[in-house]
This record gives sequence, structure tokens and C-alpha cells, in this order.
Amino acid sequence: MEYRRLGSTGLKVSALSYGAWVTFGRQVGRSAARELIACAYDNGINFFDNAETYNAGDAERLMGDVIADLRLPRDAYCVSSKVYFGASEHPRPTQRGLSRKHVFDACHQALDRLRVDYLDMYFCHRPDPDTPVEETVLAMDTLVRQGKVMYWGTSEWPAEAIEEAHRIARERHLVAPSMEQPQYNLLHRDRVEREYAPLYQRYGMGTTIWSPLASGLLTGKYNDGVPDDSRLGHPDYAWLREALLENDGARLKSVRALAPIATDLGMPMSRLALAWCLKNPNVSTVILGASKLAQLEENLKALDAVPSLDGEAMRRIAEALG
Amino acid sequence: MEYRRLGSTGLKVSALSYGAWVTFGRQVGRSAARELIACAYDNGINFFDNAETYNAGDAERLMGDVIADLRLPRDAYCVSSKVYFGASEHPRPTQRGLSRKHVFDACHQALDRLRVDYLDMYFCHRPDPDTPVEETVLAMDTLVRQGKVMYWGTSEWPAEAIEEAHRIARERHLVAPSMEQPQYNLLHRDRVEREYAPLYQRYGMGTTIWSPLASGLLTGKYNDGVPDDSRLGHPDYAWLREALLENDGARLKSVRALAPIATDLGMPMSRLALAWCLKNPNVSTVILGASKLAQLEENLKALDAVPSLDGEAMRRIAEALG
Amino acid sequence: MEYRRLGSTGLKVSALSYGAWVTFGRQVGRSAARELIACAYDNGINFFDNAETYNAGDAERLMGDVIADLRLPRDAYCVSSKVYFGASEHPRPTQRGLSRKHVFDACHQALDRLRVDYLDMYFCHRPDPDTPVEETVLAMDTLVRQGKVMYWGTSEWPAEAIEEAHRIARERHLVAPSMEQPQYNLLHRDRVEREYAPLYQRYGMGTTIWSPLASGLLTGKYNDGVPDDSRLGHPDYAWLREALLENDGARLKSVRALAPIATDLGMPMSRLALAWCLKNPNVSTVILGASKLAQLEENLKALDAVPSLDGEAMRRIAEALG
Amino acid sequence: MEYRRLGSTGLKVSALSYGAWVTFGRQVGRSAARELIACAYDNGINFFDNAETYNAGDAERLMGDVIADLRLPRDAYCVSSKVYFGASEHPRPTQRGLSRKHVFDACHQALDRLRVDYLDMYFCHRPDPDTPVEETVLAMDTLVRQGKVMYWGTSEWPAEAIEEAHRIARERHLVAPSMEQPQYNLLHRDRVEREYAPLYQRYGMGTTIWSPLASGLLTGKYNDGVPDDSRLGHPDYAWLREALLENDGARLKSVRALAPIATDLGMPMSRLALAWCLKNPNVSTVILGASKLAQLEENLKALDAVPSLDGEAMRRIAEALG
Repeated sequence: MEYRRLGSTGLKVSALSYGAWVTFGRQVGRSAARELIACAYDNGINFFDNAETYNAGDAERLMGDVIADLRLPRDAYCVSSKVYFGASEHPRPTQRGLSRKHVFDACHQALDRLRVDYLDMYFCHRPDPDTPVEETVLAMDTLVRQGKVMYWGTSEWPAEAIEEAHRIARERHLVAPSMEQPQYNLLHRDRVEREYAPLYQRYGMGTTIWSPLASGLLTGKYNDGVPDDSRLGHPDYAWLREALLENDGARLKSVRALAPIATDLGMPMSRLALAWCLKNPNVSTVILGASKLAQLEENLKALDAVPSLDGEAMRRIAEALG
Repeated sequence: MEYRRLGSTGLKVSALSYGAWVTFGRQVGRSAARELIACAYDNGINFFDNAETYNAGDAERLMGDVIADLRLPRDAYCVSSKVYFGASEHPRPTQRGLSRKHVFDACHQALDRLRVDYLDMYFCHRPDPDTPVEETVLAMDTLVRQGKVMYWGTSEWPAEAIEEAHRIARERHLVAPSMEQPQYNLLHRDRVEREYAPLYQRYGMGTTIWSPLASGLLTGKYNDGVPDDSRLGHPDYAWLREALLENDGARLKSVRALAPIATDLGMPMSRLALAWCLKNPNVSTVILGASKLAQLEENLKALDAVPSLDGEAMRRIAEALG
Repeated sequence: MEYRRLGSTGLKVSALSYGAWVTFGRQVGRSAARELIACAYDNGINFFDNAETYNAGDAERLMGDVIADLRLPRDAYCVSSKVYFGASEHPRPTQRGLSRKHVFDACHQALDRLRVDYLDMYFCHRPDPDTPVEETVLAMDTLVRQGKVMYWGTSEWPAEAIEEAHRIARERHLVAPSMEQPQYNLLHRDRVEREYAPLYQRYGMGTTIWSPLASGLLTGKYNDGVPDDSRLGHPDYAWLREALLENDGARLKSVRALAPIATDLGMPMSRLALAWCLKNPNVSTVILGASKLAQLEENLKALDAVPSLDGEAMRRIAEALG
Repeated sequence: MEYRRLGSTGLKVSALSYGAWVTFGRQVGRSAARELIACAYDNGINFFDNAETYNAGDAERLMGDVIADLRLPRDAYCVSSKVYFGASEHPRPTQRGLSRKHVFDACHQALDRLRVDYLDMYFCHRPDPDTPVEETVLAMDTLVRQGKVMYWGTSEWPAEAIEEAHRIARERHLVAPSMEQPQYNLLHRDRVEREYAPLYQRYGMGTTIWSPLASGLLTGKYNDGVPDDSRLGHPDYAWLREALLENDGARLKSVRALAPIATDLGMPMSRLALAWCLKNPNVSTVILGASKLAQLEENLKALDAVPSLDGEAMRRIAEALG
């Protein structure tokens, strides 16, 4: 496994990490979760990503149980939570957002669900237009100084909101955010590559990127339509299916154009997509979401595939994406 | 229910909330309190107001027992306390005021009585001329950073004292007050509308207003004299009766002049009075003090009555108040 | 009882207070201590003074046991400790002084001996030339923010060291000292009246004065020699006897010259001496050290005697002191 | 025993102290450790040095057990730990370095192994190029304010990194480092005497020096070759043997040249070497590593030998060292 600093912090995260997202507690039950996390850890993955909202808290509960069961040493792995959407399907007004109350409540609840004394990373899952950034920065600073959170960050915040957080932290002697969790993949690049460009150097911002395979689209498995037994085929994910296939299927066309490149490089499409993410030096870690052991094992090969993405391969990829 | 931000904080409070004040532990016993709080919560009320001094701590004890008994989720509601007057009838010198000792002692005692780990709001119930504002601001800041208080504020402080608190907080990197709890109703408007006018914008100050019905006067029930079995008729409330009826009964005259407007709008006087408070955008929440279920249910209708207070109605109200 | 603010803080201390000093655990055993503290509290005394070094911790243990036994409400009284000399007869190098280690250790030990969760006042018993003032100020600030100490102060520090502490506190956003515990009595006035003069206004410094009777000298009981059964007659107090009677017995002469004034005012010498201390508005509280109930009861009369010290009486006192 | 201030702090450490380093848990078993620490403490040694990495945590476990067993009063001795190398032979990426996560984890683990509530000194065992100094300074500040660490410092940091830590601490109102633990002995002088020269005055930096006998070389016992039963003769210490004897044995030559001076002063070589370290006023304490009681007893005589190192002796030493 390769380890990268989380931006300019001293935390070394594995370049590939593993997230619960929508799978834990749905496709992935207890025994599968145990197998997946054990495999990830044995292969050097040291960061397990989660959020209060993933399956309304069940993803964190499951992950917490499994990690406790596996007796992973607490100082050898990192676990995250995210606050914003609430941990129930219909949160009451004080059960969501980035108010001090909810940031504190959600932290304590995540600690409880994950069965740990502190969160290694705690993300503001979205910007909250109804809470002043200063209130959230102070809440995060307090949790860090209480030892309940090691590093706090943001997820899908506009660059200017991140800059505001840094300005406030500097002026008020508060702990600044350390990382962002943006979506990033071959089909979704603008924010990471353009919008955030000035932040990496200026603030030493790290990134823990999600959806490196664009919810499976970049595996190529939907190239010939959406199978009924796939995640996108499930009625619950109609919203996701639509989002991915919108815009006249322009995304699918790009994916199809990438297929021959993967073939020529002798690797599956998904490996190409993950390796491409890993090539970006501003990416601290690529969060995998594999729900099956074989997928995870395949995904882990992406690190070795990075050198194959030489100048020629990158040029072809650029062409395919138009 | 409508929810409003508590000033510029991220806390969303229900536009109508419920307070213990003089009723809990007197007119309102355990079973009535349980019924009232359950009804309030079921109707979306998420803020329950209290103070150390309300019935010498008994109001907090009763509310704490009932909330625990109802098993309300801690992150779904807000509860407050207030410090200044002490929690006994004859407090000793260190058992009242805004000294660091009493602010800390009173917080811990309120947490104990209310059976919670933190107070959502903690008010300085009055300004304390014998304690420097800096001492109180630092005490509040400490409680916030210890996680024992979410938001601190003031109650019936002159605007300039609130401004002093903000100045100190800014200079010393301390947590500033977020809200005021002033009296506000059709008969008592100056402080909220004039004295505090510059504070809403400047500091994002929220308000949790008390006595929206002027201790019942605005229900119209005293229009024809004070009945023996009403709260004002009780010998213990002679002081309140006198305060309300002072000044040659000018207040009563205003109330009587408002009566036909309520009639024309097809609503009871109390509903008119509450809706009028709700119309003020600087009011974060209107604290109800109903001691009977029917009253509470009636009061909850005020939200729907707000649109009836159109330009014409407001003009007539202004005339009636002279 | 009269209550005074501790300098500009919000803490109201009784103008007369009660200290353990050398008596607790020696002349004063458990039952006497219980009687004395109960009498003091019943008469409105709300501050009980102590120090780690008083009888090597035994004074604090005894006071803690008695207060617990009397079930005094924690928010109704104040208790202090002082750090510097250590709590054993032969402290090791890290068991004394004002290092962060000893300030923390001594606080925790005093909390344990006194059986309380926090100290109302915590004094640096002497300046420590071997510890930077900044280290001590930061240690005190930390204890205040942890809720273990309400107000910290100094005892017998030169004015300039107190000023340094304030300067550091201001610059580093730390909690400043609130009070001094100096010796002050008719025979020992310079520091309180002259050296500290600029500090009262500038920093709102309070004073908790010790030895208002100059170790008994101002009771007049040594006017005709030191009785064997008095404190000064005890071999252990040879040092004190010598200190008081040094300088050719100049002090004793002053005391003898004051005697007729007390007689003319119709009060015992000790009452005159205490009332004289109370007249100084910069004195927050006068610590009594009575070891017998009758003494304490007599001392409590000093408050009523203050008005007798009119202009004429004060003029005669000034003459008697030369 | 002589006691010295740890730089400009208020902590008084014994001029000779005792460290676990590589011996505890290897040459030194439980009963020997008990004997050695008891002897050290009885002779006035009050600082026991340790680190997470010494025998992968076993040195701390052994020391903690022995100190608990001897019932040394917690306020009478100091104990340290150091963070950087990890507490296992093959630490995972998050189990070493100076990230906030590892600084916190390592502190809690050391408290646990040493069976204490706080560390008197906590050292950053090496500079960490992969962690911003600001992150480490804030982590240390947090531990100090939580009461888990009394004084933090560095070990073998370049002067400029120490200066950066001070600059950050000053600007951000954080607790600055108090001491360095550098190697210092007759054969290794540059850093302590030259590189750090400006720091003693500027920051009041204390030093707790290690290897005053250059791993035994300065006892003279290797003058005629390395005996098989000595520490350097052990296969595990091949690296140390090579390091000491490198450079054509220049060090050994120096040691041989010092031998006659020790003989003329009537003391063993080791005593001369320790006394020479003690002569340096910028040395706060010299950490002894004796693994046998007789060695420790001999080493304790170094304090009395300091006066023998007069001008003439120092001149001869300088000549011998070339």
C-alpha cells in the first residue's frame, strides 16, 4: 500500500481507502462487512469513511461493530463521520445542519455508533446556508481541543466557503479545516482540478475523494444497459440512475470511448479509472465502495496500475473524454 | 410548525415555544405538565424555556422529569435555564448574580434538575451591576467550550450592556451572546422595537420573547375585572395584578379597544396578540405559558392567523393602541 | 453580616471570614472546629480560608471533614487553598513553589482534602523567584477554565509582580488574578495602604487580609507579658513571639497606647482592631482566626463597632500609633 | 543531590536523573529495576526518563510497575515519555511521527503504561518532516491544557525547528516547548555547545542530556577492545558498536587520552565524564543509564567530583580531546 499525507497534515492515509456509503446495511450485511474490512485492513487500507446519514446511522453501527469485532488497534486505523443530513430519514430541524448543537450531538452519536473515543476525521457534509461559518469552525475547534476529533474538514463545499473557514480560523485562533471530500472521477473533474486549485498550496488542503467509479458507471458494467440485479437497477436508486444517465447519456458515451484504452493497457475499466484518480497528486486518498470481496481485491490492484498511465495513455484518455 | 433561526445562529427553533415560568409546580402539576409538553412537542414545539428561579427550581425539576419520562430525543428539542435570581426564596449572597461562581453553580444545578448533559440556551436573567461583564462572558465562554451550554444569551439587558458583551467577546476571542429574552407584546414594545433595533443586524441577535399575552391581559379575560379563580386573582400575584393594571388601567383600555378587531378577524383576542408577535421578523420564538391543554391548543392556532394580519388589520391595531 | 465584592469580581464575601491557619489541627480539634465553623456560617460568614501548608495539610483535612459533616450547601460558601510551601514539613523540590506541576498537584490535593469539586479562591502563597510569572498565570488560567478554581490570586506578592501577572494575562488572553491576601492590621499597614494603592482601581483587586489582630498582640493580652498558656507562650511559636516583640517592643508600646481609646469607646481592644480594618474600603474581607467560640462571638461584634470609629477616634488612633 | 531548574521553568529536576532507554526490559529485569529506581529515588533523583519506543513500550511498562510498587508520591518525582518512533517494532503509518493523532494516542498509551495521570515531560523524539510544526505545537498545547502533560519539549531537533516552534507558540497563544533532550558528552558537544547556544537565553530552554558516557565508551571499559559480555558486545548492538568505533576509532583514542587525567584526579573515567557534563550550566540534568546498582552508586559520586574539574583539569581535558 502507498501512504499519502492528508494534505499538509501529519496524518498518513492509505492511497486507497474504504467507505460505507449506501452499501453498508443494505447490500452489505454483517458477515460481508467483516470480510471486506478485514481484507481492506490486511491490504494496508487504514481509513474507513462514514457519515451519520449513511443508512440513517446503520452504516456507522455496522462498521463500529465490525471494527470492534476485528480488534483493530485504534492507533493503526482512521475512521470518519460526517455531519449535516442527520441520522434519521425525517430529521427534525435541530437534528441536521451545522449548528453547534447538531455538530456536537452528531459527533457524540457517531462516537457511540462507531464505538470509538475520537473521530480521526469529521466532515461538514455540505455547506449550511443557515449557519454562520464561524459557528461551525468554533464547534469543530472545540471538539478538536476536547480530543474528540483529530482533523475536521468539509465535503462538497464551494472554494470560497472553505476560504472563509480558513480566514476565520486564522483570525480567531481556531483550528482550521484540513481536508475536503469531493466527488472526483474521470467524468467529474471540475471542482477538484479547477475550483480547488488554489487551495492545495495555500492551505495544504487534503482530499478524500468519493465516487471514483461514478457509482459503477466507470466499471463499464452499464455500457450495454442497466442490469436488474445491479445497484443502479434497484428501484431505490432510480435517482442515481437518472443522474448518471442524464444529458443524453453523454457520460455513457465517454465511458464507452474509454473502454478500448483499458483493453489496450490490459486492465479492466475500473482499474483504469481508479489509477487515473491516484495519479492526481492533490488526491490524498481514493475511497473505494466495493460491496463484494472480489471487487475490492480487483480495486486494490489500481495502485500497481498507476505507472501504466504514461503520457501516451493520458493523451488517449483526454481524447476519449473529449 | 414554522421554524426560525435563533438570530444568525444555526439553531432552528419553533416559532412558538413553551415555558414553565410561574405555572410549573403551581397551577401545573405533574400530569398536566406531561400532557402539555407532549402536546407541544407533538405539534412541533422544540424549545422549552425555564430558569433557576421559577418556583425555586421546582419548575426545572418538573420539566426535567416529564421530558425524561416522555423520552424525547435529546437532539430534537431545546431546553433553557437562566441564572441570576437564585434557586431558593432567600438566596445567600453567592447563590445569585452573575459571578463566575454562581454562573457555574447554577449551570450544574440546572443540568441536574433538568436531567440533561447540556443546556441549549443559558440566559443571564438580568444584568448584574455587581459583576463585570467580562467575568460573565468568560464564564459563559468556558461553559460553551466545555460542551455544557450551546448558546448563551441575556434577558432584559439594556442594549448597551449587550453591546459591551459583544465588544469583550470580540477582543478576548470569547463566545458572544446569541439571543435576548425580552418581554414583548402589544402593550410592551419599546425595547424590542426601538432599543434593540440596531442589534439584530449588527450581531445577528435572536429573541425568545416572554409574556406575549401580557400575563393574560391580552386574552381579554380581565376586561370585566379580575376573576377570583384566575392567576391574577390569586393573592400571590397581587404584585403582577398591580403592575398590569397600573397607570389608570391604560393597558386595560387598550385591550378593550383591540377586542372588536379580533372579533372582526374571527379569532379570539389571544390569537390576535400571538399572531401579532409572530409577525415581527426579529422575534425568533414566542414563548407560550398556557397552563391548560385547551389554551395551548388554541395558542397553537396563532401561526395560521398571521396572514390575517394584513395592512388594514395592522392599521386598526395601531389605532387601537393609540 | 455585611457582604463585600471581592474587588471588582462578582463574588460577594462576608466582611468577616474565618481561617484555619496555625490553629486547625493544633489548638482546634474536630469538635471545636465543628462548633466554630457552624457558628461562623450561622452568623453569615461565607468564606473559609485555608492553605496546603497549614499544619501540613491537616488544617484542610479537618475543615473539609467539618464542612461535609455540617452539610453546608456548596454554592453558599467559599473555601480557599494556597500553593507554595508544600503540604509536608520537608517538601521535596517538586512539592513546593509555583511550577505548573506543583500548582496542579497542590490544587488536586487540596480539592481532595477539602472534599470539594472546586476551590473558590486559590492563592499563590508567595512569589516564586524560580518560576516565571507566565508559567503560573497559565497554570491558574487552565484551572479556571477546567472549572477547578473560581478565582485565583496572590498572597504577599510585591505590587510589581502582581502588575506583571496582569500584563501577561492581558497579552496572552489569560485569566488575571482577582485578589491578594496580605497581612494587614494596625501595626502592619504599609503594603495595603501604600504599595498596593494603585492596584485597587487599576485592576479591581480585592484583599482578604490576614492577621488583623497581629497574632493576638492587638487583643492586648500580651500587654503585661506572654502567658505560658497562650499561643505565643507555646515553644513552637518562639519564632512568632520574637517577630512580634522585636524592635525593642515598639509594637507592644503602640498596643498599650491604643488601650485607653478602646476603653473610651467601650469596646475591647480586639474589636477596635478589627473594626479599624473593616473601615478600609479596599479590604474585601477580614479573616478571623479565633480558636475559641467566645473569641469568635466577640470578633463578630466588630462589624457593629465600625461606626464608632469616627473622625475623632481615628485621629486618636493615628496619634497612638505615632 | 543538587537540583536545577529545567531551563527557565519552575520545575526543579535533580542534576542527575535516571533513564530506561535500551536497558529496561532487556539487561534490567523487574527486581533489578526496582532496586535501581529505589536507589535513585533515595539518593534524591526525581526524574525518570522514558519513551514509547524503548523496548517497544516494555521499558515504560516496567518503570510504571516499579514506581507504583514503590509507592513513590506522585508529586515528588517526574516521569517522561517521548513520541515519534512508535511503540512497536513495525509501526503502521499512523503509529509513529508527530501528527496530532499519534501525539495524542502515544500520550494516552504512555499514561497507561506508566500508570500515571499525567506526564511531567513529553518529548517529540525527533523532528517530523511530514508534520507541520504548528500541528504538533497545537497538539502539545492541548495536552498541557487538558492537564495530561506538564512540560513538552523536543529531542534532537535542529535549533531552527525549535525556533519555529517558539515563533508559532507566541503568535498563536500556545504553550511553547520548555526543554530539549540532546546527546551530550565529552565526545559529542557541538549541538549543545554551539548550535543551541542562542536558545538558552532567548527561550529559557532546559536540557535533559542523554548518553553522558557515550554508551559506555567513556567508562574506558572498551579501551582494550569490546568484551563479549558487555552491552556493546551483544549482537543486537552491532549498530551501536559500529557507530561508536567509526572514524578510525578516533573516539577511542580520545578516551584513552583522557584516562591519565582521571587517574591523576583520583576518580574513575566515568565519574570524570559525568562531572564534566554537570559543569555545563545549560545542562539541566544528566540522565544516567546504569544497569547495575554498583554503577549507579558510582555514578552518583559525579556531583561531588565537579569541583575537582578546575581550570587546570579542564585545560588538560581540552588538550586530550584535541
